[in-house]
Amino acid sequence: MTEPLAPPVRPPLAELDPELTWSDVAGTRVGVTSAGMYGRPRDDVTVLVAPGTAAALTTRSSAASAPCRWTRARVPGPCDAVVINAGNSNAATGPEGEAAVQRTAEAAARVLGTTPEAVLVCSTGVIGVPLPLDRLLPGVERAAGSLDADATRAAHAILTTDLVPKQAGARAGGLSVAGFAKGSGMIHPNMGTMLAFVATDAQVEAADLQKLLGEIADRTFNCVTVDGDTSTSDTLIVQATGKGLDARPGMPGRAELASALEAVCRELSRMIARDGEGAEHLLHVLIQGTESDAIAREAARAVCVSPLVKTAVYGRDPNWGRVVGALGKAGVAGLDVLDLDFAGVPVLRAGRPLDFDEAAASAALAQPEVTIHARLPGPGLGEAWGCDLTPGYVSINADYRS
Amino acid sequence: MTEPLAPPVRPPLAELDPELTWSDVAGTRVGVTSAGMYGRPRDDVTVLVAPGTAAALTTRSSAASAPCRWTRARVPGPCDAVVINAGNSNAATGPEGEAAVQRTAEAAARVLGTTPEAVLVCSTGVIGVPLPLDRLLPGVERAAGSLDADATRAAHAILTTDLVPKQAGARAGGLSVAGFAKGSGMIHPNMGTMLAFVATDAQVEAADLQKLLGEIADRTFNCVTVDGDTSTSDTLIVQATGKGLDARPGMPGRAELASALEAVCRELSRMIARDGEGAEHLLHVLIQGTESDAIAREAARAVCVSPLVKTAVYGRDPNWGRVVGALGKAGVAGLDVLDLDFAGVPVLRAGRPLDFDEAAASAALAQPEVTIHARLPGPGLGEAWGCDLTPGYVSINADYRS
Repeated sequence: MTEPLAPPVRPPLAELDPELTWSDVAGTRVGVTSAGMYGRPRDDVTVLVAPGTAAALTTRSSAASAPCRWTRARVPGPCDAVVINAGNSNAATGPEGEAAVQRTAEAAARVLGTTPEAVLVCSTGVIGVPLPLDRLLPGVERAAGSLDADATRAAHAILTTDLVPKQAGARAGGLSVAGFAKGSGMIHPNMGTMLAFVATDAQVEAADLQKLLGEIADRTFNCVTVDGDTSTSDTLIVQATGKGLDARPGMPGRAELASALEAVCRELSRMIARDGEGAEHLLHVLIQGTESDAIAREAARAVCVSPLVKTAVYGRDPNWGRVVGALGKAGVAGLDVLDLDFAGVPVLRAGRPLDFDEAAASAALAQPEVTIHARLPGPGLGEAWGCDLTPGYVSINADYRS
Repeated sequence: MTEPLAPPVRPPLAELDPELTWSDVAGTRVGVTSAGMYGRPRDDVTVLVAPGTAAALTTRSSAASAPCRWTRARVPGPCDAVVINAGNSNAATGPEGEAAVQRTAEAAARVLGTTPEAVLVCSTGVIGVPLPLDRLLPGVERAAGSLDADATRAAHAILTTDLVPKQAGARAGGLSVAGFAKGSGMIHPNMGTMLAFVATDAQVEAADLQKLLGEIADRTFNCVTVDGDTSTSDTLIVQATGKGLDARPGMPGRAELASALEAVCRELSRMIARDGEGAEHLLHVLIQGTESDAIAREAARAVCVSPLVKTAVYGRDPNWGRVVGALGKAGVAGLDVLDLDFAGVPVLRAGRPLDFDEAAASAALAQPEVTIHARLPGPGLGEAWGCDLTPGYVSINADYRS
């Protein structure tokens, strides 16, 4: 009886606090309203006020939306507020799209008593359709004018085809980090988006926060794949109010900020994968080995995005050959000595297939979270999170206009 | 009313001859038998005899099967025969797999009166399962011992989940090129394979044929994507018997060989895409522009493999935003001035959305072949072929063990 592979040993992250939300962070306020972006009353405009500094990451798509380009041009740096609308991504909308972002930031700044440059903008929804400013701008003014909402309401207001809101918070030392996110693959009705908003009371400089965020996102949000596609609008924004612990490099709060920020980003990433369009399983791929963490992460993503691996998980089929195929496609070296566990069941050791109990493996695949764990020569360590590919994914993306 | 984009102007390829098959090429013979690889009687072992020279391309997967590694080590070069078995890919089988290929080549060589080094081997089917040599070797000897079959029978014998056999032939000048192929994505029961076998009577040197094949494959077989996955066993072999026209560089038959070989490779590629697992549409992506043909092909592949584009085509939804998203993900430059036709319907000009008749576009998407045509700045030209993503794909890949 072959033993399953031992998990890698890593320093623990800050513990999650299920009670802690974005609006519990000192120095934050939230406004939410309905601007009728969906042609019916539902919360669809959110204003997140957290005066301080901000860092952000936006999509790497060369078709990045106008709001992504606006945000990219202003971070890292000082930031007072973020305006978010669901229902229209303002992508592929030409020069008119640029002007619409400017007017959105101006409307919020006017009400909040700040400058448009201190306002970041995020949009999600249909692409290639002009933003209905006649509806949006009054909504932005209403939301900015009554900052009486909380993060839970905001976490609902940014959703599109997501089934559930996604929030996570963590405390470390005397310091708080909390956030919420949306995203479940590419989203009705056209292009989709991953949006995530995190607040912390830490004292941290914008450029430094940007660097830390980039490192953490590479291990968390950048390791989530639902369908391998990249949105025109993906945006992750962290706002730091500086009301709490000093977390500048070398200061006591530094380790706490890193630990809590990674814990929150990791949990939100897992929630996005679990809520993937049509998903019935959270797929977690762990690669120990390869030359570097970056190569191991790339390999983990390659397994996570493979339609054959994803359909095997949906079919509860311990079809490990497809994992080898995906690793091979990714050009991973050393597969002749690969160790592999599929849903906790050892299936391959030193490149040689093991006899294993198909029924037990299939039962293990019935669990809501399925881990594929590969071990190869080398010091690298990488993870990715995704979901299975189901008939639900196809119908969500093919049938929604019917 | 905006005019659809004009097709690119290209030199015509040799005309296809529906009557011309692999075994019609001078100097070829075929043996086919059942070795019971599927546990039931059906043709599953093929021997293709065409003494002369051979060129071949095999999978780029770092998990390449033992037969792929055997073939790779022997081409370009002299070749008498190719042995093919369906039902077991002999991949991820360790050192025993290497020995099994050796014995397969030896068995065929013994009967054909040649050396194992002059025999190439291809296997497709389940991976990670030792090849049942007790059944395979007698089958190889039977097939090699009675070379009384034709290419049509061989085209059936190599199929796995393919719905239809795939054959194409072309004559140019006095010269014949014909071939057959299998492949419809990753295939029951584990990893799948694209296999293609082409014969020509042209007089051509192996290294020269290898170079020509590489150039043509980059425009044909390497532009087919069903699910973005790469098999451990993909193999394309061209055998040249030298019984016909001199097609060495500078000789009269050279242009004919290039033209006929590309026509056959292109048609087989289209047939593979059309027969993609669960496919209801052949998806054809044509990119005019970008810096080079290679970049344009990469962009075409990116659109062709996008699950969102594929589900939109299945759903008959002229959801052009997803094409922009896929091009953006691929990092294509100049999308701000993109021209785009979706199923022949102009939807975008100079980066600005057009008003178009949704109903007409949806009707155009009901055609069995759907072309997405993008035009960007630059001299590049690239094409890719794929298929839509349907519930059938999911069930083929998830449910086959039930």
